[in-house]
Amino acid sequence: MDEGGNSPVTPAGNVRLKDVATATGYSVNTVSLALRGSVRLPRETRERIRKVARELDYLPNVLARALAGSQCYAVGLVLTDILNPVLTGVAQEISSALHVSGYSTLFATSNNEIEREIEVIRAFRSRQADGILVFPVHHQEIGHLVEMRQNQFAIVSLAPVSDPSMDCVCLRERKGARMAVEHLVCQGHRDIAILDAASPLGNFEKRDGYLEALQFVGLPVRPDLQILVRGHQIADGRAAMARLRKGAVQPTAVFATSDPIALGALQWCRENSVRVPEDVSVMGFDDTGYSRISDPPLSTVRFPVQGIARASVEHLQRLIARCGELPAPVRIQLEPELIVRASTAAAGAG
Amino acid sequence: MDEGGNSPVTPAGNVRLKDVATATGYSVNTVSLALRGSVRLPRETRERIRKVARELDYLPNVLARALAGSQCYAVGLVLTDILNPVLTGVAQEISSALHVSGYSTLFATSNNEIEREIEVIRAFRSRQADGILVFPVHHQEIGHLVEMRQNQFAIVSLAPVSDPSMDCVCLRERKGARMAVEHLVCQGHRDIAILDAASPLGNFEKRDGYLEALQFVGLPVRPDLQILVRGHQIADGRAAMARLRKGAVQPTAVFATSDPIALGALQWCRENSVRVPEDVSVMGFDDTGYSRISDPPLSTVRFPVQGIARASVEHLQRLIARCGELPAPVRIQLEPELIVRASTAAAGAG
Repeated sequence: MDEGGNSPVTPAGNVRLKDVATATGYSVNTVSLALRGSVRLPRETRERIRKVARELDYLPNVLARALAGSQCYAVGLVLTDILNPVLTGVAQEISSALHVSGYSTLFATSNNEIEREIEVIRAFRSRQADGILVFPVHHQEIGHLVEMRQNQFAIVSLAPVSDPSMDCVCLRERKGARMAVEHLVCQGHRDIAILDAASPLGNFEKRDGYLEALQFVGLPVRPDLQILVRGHQIADGRAAMARLRKGAVQPTAVFATSDPIALGALQWCRENSVRVPEDVSVMGFDDTGYSRISDPPLSTVRFPVQGIARASVEHLQRLIARCGELPAPVRIQLEPELIVRASTAAAGAG
Repeated sequence: MDEGGNSPVTPAGNVRLKDVATATGYSVNTVSLALRGSVRLPRETRERIRKVARELDYLPNVLARALAGSQCYAVGLVLTDILNPVLTGVAQEISSALHVSGYSTLFATSNNEIEREIEVIRAFRSRQADGILVFPVHHQEIGHLVEMRQNQFAIVSLAPVSDPSMDCVCLRERKGARMAVEHLVCQGHRDIAILDAASPLGNFEKRDGYLEALQFVGLPVRPDLQILVRGHQIADGRAAMARLRKGAVQPTAVFATSDPIALGALQWCRENSVRVPEDVSVMGFDDTGYSRISDPPLSTVRFPVQGIARASVEHLQRLIARCGELPAPVRIQLEPELIVRASTAAAGAG
């Protein structure tokens, strides 16, 4: 039953992009751009088209598109650091999960630089990525990400960000850090240092967890035991440990905010005949495959690689399917798990 | 001096895409597709356009395009395994080198599956990647890559492949393997095993280097000391070592074709109270950051991460600049370097 003209129609079957085009008078291409939230169209045009798409109950069938397709569907994944095994572990799982749904995953690294983050996201968008998953460089400076979300683009952060208008699938990092430090406290440690590579990037979750654990048991917070680390490589952890050991107070335990930093601390200790865990306990965060084979094997907090990957892919696909009109942003948080190995022991055990 | 009509013109300044379009009578879009080697055009059309472009001495100025651009230029990089630190190390360096030239790098993983490799390359091409760098899944089954090269698409393999019609920037892997095994031979080892994760993927360079080293000094080649490994993770190396140790002959030295495999062998030894290097020497290949911090630190062969990244980016850019008419394929080979650490020692030292 064609009612003709440009007035909305409600066909019996699925509403196609073409139906939205007919109903609005715009081309299929313009409609597609509008529903993807392209900033190449004036805001009024986007909103008019979306309104009609809503009235028609238009829902793009992603899987059908992929199956139909000579075209390739793709999701962009932005890592801060392609050398970090926990990030590449997540990337691997995300790629597999998206493959099952008929999507290719294209990765890019921001190399921990905001400008690069903006650049690679632009590269993804200009190449019609259907959605973007991002480990943001900075956890506060995310205006460019929030703007995309507000323009109805399907984008999900894989790390906690301060702005509630972003969708987020992340680990409860603060809780994980608190568990790590409480483990050290329970072993009798009082002078506990933190090698903190997260705060310089605006992510204070792990530092706050560290502080909470100390304050909960009434231990003093010592600024000289809080070492800020710029960089995420093993070498950065080694340098940070050297800096810590130059201080007046020698901690009996060290909490590193990532495994590579902790592995660097272990390396410094071995090179300087400081015994782990007899002289100092070392605790990591993430539980990469290398933590099991280090000397000694590393106590750490497990980052739920598969869980984050699955939940983020599922949520992103939900957003892609609703790309004309996204639901309210949500924060999905996964639970950390404490992994105790040989790098931590009771204080004074040496 | 405009000669008019469709006959080739030779303007004083740089020849633009538009000039090629005018000279051929095709649209700028069609000319662009032809010069990129798009299979969407009939072969005759492509060749006619390329011929005129050659006559006009048309050379796309990549840097100017990037600088001019609201558009983003991008190169696709296909890794076989995003968890392998030597591959992500190369990816990191390539990304930095391309960034300097105004390109974004988009990565994808083939997950060591040919179908995924074809899929992600399709995704890159349908998204106008200007060129592709690829660690191929299989070193013999590369028909789909050779075809792209023959269609004048800028694509470079980062590993040795058998077909001379592919451009290749790679390590002299055979030589590296030979150096590794000769190091073990010089230490007095006679029963030397190989944990070979390369041959199952059609890359026989390292196995051949192993065989050459043995044959050169007249040592017998024992099939029961050649273990094929399917997979590239630490766990795969651990399982391979377990398999090797079930055999009748206990080798005094083991050469693994990659560091993760060697680290897995170290792990098996530690778990089974086999001392390294006293009971068995273990040699890796690649020299990732983790090899320095393993217990004991791993003797290995260095993969020149920066060298491969720089040479491949340089060569790819050369090809992109000539994408209408590629020069003859070349193989650029980089030299390996032997790194001796504590995991190898003289035979019978224990």
